[in-house]
Amino acid sequence: TDGKIKVESRDGAWSFQPIGRVMWDAIDSDADDLADDAQGTELRRARLGFSGSIYDWGYKFEADFAGGDASIKDAYVSYGNKFSNGVRYGVKMGQSHVPFGLNTKISSKYMSFMDRPLFADTDWSPARQSGVVADLAADDYRWTFSAGLTNGGLSGGETTDNGSTFAARASFVPYMASKNQLIQIGAGYLTRGGGDGFDDDQRVVSHIDNTKPLELVVAPSADDGSDAFTIDAMAIFGSFHAMAEYLDYTNDTTAGDIDTTGYAIEAGYFLTGESLKWKKGYTSGITPKSKYGAWQIAARFENMEIDEISGNATSGDEADKFTLGLNYYPTKNTRLMLNYDKITDLKIDGVSRDEEPSALKFRAQAFW
Amino acid sequence: TDGKIKVESRDGAWSFQPIGRVMWDAIDSDADDLADDAQGTELRRARLGFSGSIYDWGYKFEADFAGGDASIKDAYVSYGNKFSNGVRYGVKMGQSHVPFGLNTKISSKYMSFMDRPLFADTDWSPARQSGVVADLAADDYRWTFSAGLTNGGLSGGETTDNGSTFAARASFVPYMASKNQLIQIGAGYLTRGGGDGFDDDQRVVSHIDNTKPLELVVAPSADDGSDAFTIDAMAIFGSFHAMAEYLDYTNDTTAGDIDTTGYAIEAGYFLTGESLKWKKGYTSGITPKSKYGAWQIAARFENMEIDEISGNATSGDEADKFTLGLNYYPTKNTRLMLNYDKITDLKIDGVSRDEEPSALKFRAQAFW
Amino acid sequence: TDGKIKVESRDGAWSFQPIGRVMWDAIDSDADDLADDAQGTELRRARLGFSGSIYDWGYKFEADFAGGDASIKDAYVSYGNKFSNGVRYGVKMGQSHVPFGLNTKISSKYMSFMDRPLFADTDWSPARQSGVVADLAADDYRWTFSAGLTNGGLSGGETTDNGSTFAARASFVPYMASKNQLIQIGAGYLTRGGGDGFDDDQRVVSHIDNTKPLELVVAPSADDGSDAFTIDAMAIFGSFHAMAEYLDYTNDTTAGDIDTTGYAIEAGYFLTGESLKWKKGYTSGITPKSKYGAWQIAARFENMEIDEISGNATSGDEADKFTLGLNYYPTKNTRLMLNYDKITDLKIDGVSRDEEPSALKFRAQAFW
Repeated sequence: TDGKIKVESRDGAWSFQPIGRVMWDAIDSDADDLADDAQGTELRRARLGFSGSIYDWGYKFEADFAGGDASIKDAYVSYGNKFSNGVRYGVKMGQSHVPFGLNTKISSKYMSFMDRPLFADTDWSPARQSGVVADLAADDYRWTFSAGLTNGGLSGGETTDNGSTFAARASFVPYMASKNQLIQIGAGYLTRGGGDGFDDDQRVVSHIDNTKPLELVVAPSADDGSDAFTIDAMAIFGSFHAMAEYLDYTNDTTAGDIDTTGYAIEAGYFLTGESLKWKKGYTSGITPKSKYGAWQIAARFENMEIDEISGNATSGDEADKFTLGLNYYPTKNTRLMLNYDKITDLKIDGVSRDEEPSALKFRAQAFW
Repeated sequence: TDGKIKVESRDGAWSFQPIGRVMWDAIDSDADDLADDAQGTELRRARLGFSGSIYDWGYKFEADFAGGDASIKDAYVSYGNKFSNGVRYGVKMGQSHVPFGLNTKISSKYMSFMDRPLFADTDWSPARQSGVVADLAADDYRWTFSAGLTNGGLSGGETTDNGSTFAARASFVPYMASKNQLIQIGAGYLTRGGGDGFDDDQRVVSHIDNTKPLELVVAPSADDGSDAFTIDAMAIFGSFHAMAEYLDYTNDTTAGDIDTTGYAIEAGYFLTGESLKWKKGYTSGITPKSKYGAWQIAARFENMEIDEISGNATSGDEADKFTLGLNYYPTKNTRLMLNYDKITDLKIDGVSRDEEPSALKFRAQAFW
Repeated sequence: TDGKIKVESRDGAWSFQPIGRVMWDAIDSDADDLADDAQGTELRRARLGFSGSIYDWGYKFEADFAGGDASIKDAYVSYGNKFSNGVRYGVKMGQSHVPFGLNTKISSKYMSFMDRPLFADTDWSPARQSGVVADLAADDYRWTFSAGLTNGGLSGGETTDNGSTFAARASFVPYMASKNQLIQIGAGYLTRGGGDGFDDDQRVVSHIDNTKPLELVVAPSADDGSDAFTIDAMAIFGSFHAMAEYLDYTNDTTAGDIDTTGYAIEAGYFLTGESLKWKKGYTSGITPKSKYGAWQIAARFENMEIDEISGNATSGDEADKFTLGLNYYPTKNTRLMLNYDKITDLKIDGVSRDEEPSALKFRAQAFW
């Protein structure tokens, strides 16, 4: 009765589940003289996959086909169980989430806005890599600890990075009156070996923007590795929620350190009485109380700054941005979203700019 | 008991369905001096996807992997219900069929021949685009009306066309004695904004032909938009069916109008007593009466003509073609097809040609 | 209760099954001065598909997405039944396994080592091609005979080879005391028309090696076709199994014949008492006896030799190699593998080499 399909054996010894999501966007993006404006539609995510388990062993495979090829997301074999004291443990072998940033980890199915903060789901806060990830957690997930040793993200089927990535994340719930009344704090640490270079750039107001002003390139020969940390907090009080994350990423280069920081603060409120669902240390989906669906309003302010360093042509970028969102959840597994994004302050390659790009964005999504 | 899988909740509140099709062709194509002959096999369609619904909301995602990449077909979120007077209404957000031509819309699973008419499923009669499509229909689909505002077809995940497409289609059943005794007429209208150019070319007798003689290219700078209409009729009388469609497409260019017309007339007959199934204004699959399967014979005559216009190097093409078909339906969801296609009249770039390409084609198909 | 999902109608008239597999490898490959060493991870196989049947008709579609595109594996429509004397017959139309080599045919889900022998799953012993394959077999599969006429492997959706491939394979079980006490012998024959050229090269110790020393290239203009045969044997005695295959492939070229030979001998033993499962003439999966899983040790020795012929720059390669393997089967559909591969003798382009590449490889796999 919930729109998701899961086949299970009568004794619970195994399960099997087709998974997928479709997100379709219509976008009107005003680049404000930075580049050509962009109007159009986009199939933002189109994923198919399967997950299953048999006794304590599980597996998951999901790929994204939106762009016309197959972008591998989760692809792992896992083992999980509990110690006799109730503490859960597990290990994933394959490609899975890097245990590091909160905004990067929260599923696109559940995030409050159409796009993640500028710093999230980037090389600064990587989403998925290929390797081994181990998890520990309290029986009720009021504390969690994860650590992963990975070798970059699968591209063309393999990873042969020179420098591996070690990442760890912990979360803790100091206050929990009920599932709808809680505060969680978290932190992550990441270190990456050198020699592979660093190369990322970000669009600022929509995924079809014609320009990517936030950019950092470090040549492989200049790359002495990276260190990063992130701290975050979330609070749910009835229909209200708030979330904040701060990221600090340092590239060690032969010319010196390049420091990149970002933060995002968001708040949301369900007009129709629902509460954001907290699950295993992250936010999850909601079930509308009314057969007419659920309505949520949300706002976010964020900043990202790549410090300038002499000799690096692409450093010295900064953006302030706010996002307003209106979400309608017709059913448990569908959502319509309306977002307005606007840059309020922008610096590119060390030069302050007057342009203030903005975008109006609509999304229709379903998952199963 | 019908070879298709659909999981439904007991109260009908939701459903979920894996979908797919495989079509494998063996082709012997004689280009008759126009180009090299082509012999070989082809995986014509290989699709995987899922569709589902929860209360009045639905979703569908299907991609074609036959060519080695992921070609997105349907990818939408939909809402549908009935007015109190029984009239059905619905809206699809995402990529779905453009409401325009009959032959383009009829599913490849059900069409009478291995290939659609020359004008169908082309830029002249587009299949699927990204945008919004709204539908109205009588409770029993004896009349339907659909209109769509779209922005081109998804390619690389997005559409950023300058000119949007507005299309509408209506159908009406003036005579219906039973599900197997009916006549339907239909019409479509399409208008597309300029600035994106027009570029399509068509093989004539098989999908592996080495030449595409029917061609029209209009540069983006010369493209002032397009207008098109189509009219069609179908009749089912017991084991016999007939179908006809006429298309007229006008490219407005800076050098003047280029008019493209096409028509196709087909008839089919089930030797084993089955009737073509009429469903929601289109033809659909059949269920063999005998456990030895169903046999159908079919024939089609068609013409496509791209008028010559001075200054356009690719206009001035015309082809007459007939197709003979023999279809064997072992079960409800499998079909073997044998087609013979022959061009009987051909003009290329304004010059009449003596070549008469032909092809013998076999297909094995299954869907689920 | 077995971790595989199959939906069937109550009367057995139809079935439907999602299929897939995930194999993730971590590899440390030492090229020993032949090339750069390779360390890294690889998503070796990531497949999704469906198979089903309705009465005597069936279909299967499976594609591999590991490399970022869709590599078509099985894609066919099939018919199968029994003669009145119990002999089974069947035919597959589409892309399916070429009936030829034993090691090539055994599924990657079940093979004893992470990589097949050097000669298997190559152009010398092709895996899947597009065409028609017919099968005959005893009711209990104690003898089987298959023959196929195919036109190359699907690439970009079609095959238009000049020379078709005819292949046939037969197997026979002269001794069978029980399902766990049997000996099977087999043989295959293959002939391929000329004009398409021959071009294959093989890595020697891992799938991410940076060099492919075993290479043979014949230009299309020099290709007068090929003939090949293979003979094989397998024995299962309780927890022990052994398997051997010898391949001889001859390229007829305008400069003379190039003869390529290969053989592989393997043996395995389950420490936990299980027996390799024999199914329809091939090995299949096992079910661990203990809830703590099953352990198997295995070893293989193999050789591949491409004879030198004057005027062919790429002939004259040879390798001896051994592989040691340790397999852990936690459940029926998961497996962890540890392999050590080492080249003990190597000749490249007619010159004996001192390098002895080796690799340590780990795999986590699951299928459904």
